[in-house]
Amino acid sequence: MLTNNEVKLINSLVKKKFRQKYNKFIVEGIKITDEVLKSKIKVHKVYATELIFEGFESVTELITESELKKISQSVHPNTALAMCEIPEPTEIKTDGFIIALDDVRDPGNLGTIVRMADWFGIDQIICSNETVDLYNPKVLQSSMASFLRVNVNYTDLDQFLSNYPHPVMGTFMEGENIYKSKFPENGLMIMGNEANGISEKLFPYITQKITIPRQGSIQQTESLNVAMALSIILGERASGFY
Amino acid sequence: MLTNNEVKLINSLVKKKFRQKYNKFIVEGIKITDEVLKSKIKVHKVYATELIFEGFESVTELITESELKKISQSVHPNTALAMCEIPEPTEIKTDGFIIALDDVRDPGNLGTIVRMADWFGIDQIICSNETVDLYNPKVLQSSMASFLRVNVNYTDLDQFLSNYPHPVMGTFMEGENIYKSKFPENGLMIMGNEANGISEKLFPYITQKITIPRQGSIQQTESLNVAMALSIILGERASGFY
Repeated sequence: MLTNNEVKLINSLVKKKFRQKYNKFIVEGIKITDEVLKSKIKVHKVYATELIFEGFESVTELITESELKKISQSVHPNTALAMCEIPEPTEIKTDGFIIALDDVRDPGNLGTIVRMADWFGIDQIICSNETVDLYNPKVLQSSMASFLRVNVNYTDLDQFLSNYPHPVMGTFMEGENIYKSKFPENGLMIMGNEANGISEKLFPYITQKITIPRQGSIQQTESLNVAMALSIILGERASGFY
Repeated sequence: MLTNNEVKLINSLVKKKFRQKYNKFIVEGIKITDEVLKSKIKVHKVYATELIFEGFESVTELITESELKKISQSVHPNTALAMCEIPEPTEIKTDGFIIALDDVRDPGNLGTIVRMADWFGIDQIICSNETVDLYNPKVLQSSMASFLRVNVNYTDLDQFLSNYPHPVMGTFMEGENIYKSKFPENGLMIMGNEANGISEKLFPYITQKITIPRQGSIQQTESLNVAMALSIILGERASGFY
């Protein structure tokens, strides 16, 4: 039986303010709940309409379909929802190839980028403090379980880059052709905000400007979306391994 | 002054059934309205809160902000909305490199794919009849003006492929490494449904199976989203031009 206070608490976690206050976040659906239970994330409670997570009966509370509807953000709630503890940030890795996000605001974009990083074996993403919160429900919905495998840290990018020892790449109209570029083994790729691109204050740190050449017609005016651009870049980086 | 019948008609066009009945669709926002006015698309009427489209005053009806809200699908309506005629389908081009979509259902995915095709200079997309409708407002929102430059046809893919003379590529787990593959000048890339991939009935037409090798850890279980996968594939194809 779900109490009113629980319903209130769970629904409040849609907002970053309350996630920070309670240090908790929510994942929804069977698959992600299952993966979270098997991960290092501390799960406070699973709310489910069936007892389907073997070995986790003690943290599971059986609820009705109508109770699930009250706490779900989904149009078609799917069996289970888990209330988890936001883990302590891990130390930022500066070795290897990493991604920095300068004020990416769209939750779907961040989620897709996390999923893509996971696919390409990149385990460190560094976000500016203004980048959308990883534990936003829409971010988690599009990242799926990839957020469990990729470190996502928030920091002052300007300060971070001032101490970063490896090459820094960024996309610019006048950059070198991505298809002819070499990717450093240790290095960082900055992706900018959806509307404004990379902040000017970060320009001085960029040591390698690249561009994705357009094949389309001259009337073509649309740019690439940040997640699409990054998938092309990471694909091109991966092609160098073969 | 907007009549009740106009409000009803415009709002009905969110549904495919009514778009087909009236042979009309809606675009929203200043930029896309401007591009549609300059294109070959027949614009029946522009509803705008300001007279901003020079030379198109005769088709523009000035409305109030509150009237715009009544006909907009957007949370933040942006000045203008245009009611357009769905153009006659153009003839399908079989030469060049083209994309076939086998039952892609998510509007955002189709919109992104159209935008990407435009970027990569691919001007023909062939959709199965079950693929989401191009004139769905969410598709147009994510394709932006790219839908004006890319031919998108709907047809029975099975029948189409049975007469298609060039190589047919598709992604399969056991396919050849995309980073080592050659792309035909004239050829077709099939992308499958979000949940089920490519339909079995189309397997016999596929002459070149490819795969995007995963770099991530063995725990990684998520697949690539169809739009992300296509952006990697088209990026890799483009790299061959340099």
